[in-house]
Amino acid sequence: MIDLKSLIRTIPDFPKPGIQFRDITTLLIDGGGFAAAVDALVELARPYGADLIAGIEARGFIFSGPVARALGVGLLPVRKPGKLPGPRIGIDYALEYGTDRLEIHEGACLPGHRILLVDDLIATGGTAFATISLLRQAGAEVPAALFVIDLPELGGARLLAEAGVESRSLMSFEGH
Amino acid sequence: MIDLKSLIRTIPDFPKPGIQFRDITTLLIDGGGFAAAVDALVELARPYGADLIAGIEARGFIFSGPVARALGVGLLPVRKPGKLPGPRIGIDYALEYGTDRLEIHEGACLPGHRILLVDDLIATGGTAFATISLLRQAGAEVPAALFVIDLPELGGARLLAEAGVESRSLMSFEGH
Repeated sequence: MIDLKSLIRTIPDFPKPGIQFRDITTLLIDGGGFAAAVDALVELARPYGADLIAGIEARGFIFSGPVARALGVGLLPVRKPGKLPGPRIGIDYALEYGTDRLEIHEGACLPGHRILLVDDLIATGGTAFATISLLRQAGAEVPAALFVIDLPELGGARLLAEAGVESRSLMSFEGH
Repeated sequence: MIDLKSLIRTIPDFPKPGIQFRDITTLLIDGGGFAAAVDALVELARPYGADLIAGIEARGFIFSGPVARALGVGLLPVRKPGKLPGPRIGIDYALEYGTDRLEIHEGACLPGHRILLVDDLIATGGTAFATISLLRQAGAEVPAALFVIDLPELGGARLLAEAGVESRSLMSFEGH
């Protein structure tokens, strides 16, 4: 059994002083580790019977794609402004400084669709929460969100729980 | 047998007048179509015996991740500046207007590694060519590059062939 957590590299002070960046790229380049992480997410996802997997640009695509393929369901790309070519709906959300926006194609996600969010990491949960709100605005149900890494001290999983979304992760790290 | 090409939507005049944008998101949200596209890329990839699959931010991650998982090999993320936290090497390359840069982590790709590039689309091939040059600079062999869509009139496959890289794609479209 692979110790997935040992494959994550911690880079101090990135992208700014005081942040311990949890680098997934050392897991990604390890074929056995990447497969084990994907397969563990697929096992977490299976009971929810999702119609679609939502993946957030850019790092979120790395895990959401393989999970969608393994389940045989579609992948709904959640993208930054200017990327999606068709008619779209979006949501603005607050960052530490300023705001950001995420978009999906209109009609990609339909009322009654059950969608799981799959992402690499949950910190404050702001991006995940905005994505879930956007999917619900389109009429979808979002029963759960799955992550490779949780940083529980930053409260993201608690924020999603308050919004009625279960969150599950493969590992957690203390600190920021 | 799924007609994958029929799942691609064409959006005229995006991102600028005169461009016929080939939108893969209509394929992605179709569970059967996405699975068939990934599986077809995996069959193209298998004979090359790759050690790693390289995926280019952001759309490239959507197909490179599932192909790497299916082959049981690692995924090497090729990213824009400011994204990778560790020591890295990069390459600058020319765009139609100005230049861009792609980076990989130092040590992620080692001399003698056989790496396949997997991306959603090849047009002029500038981004693929820059990526292949960067991987070779790190000592890797890049026998082939695989794409969902080829736009042959734009000459990308020819550019890669001149550099000694086979390119294979699941479908092609005439025009830009």
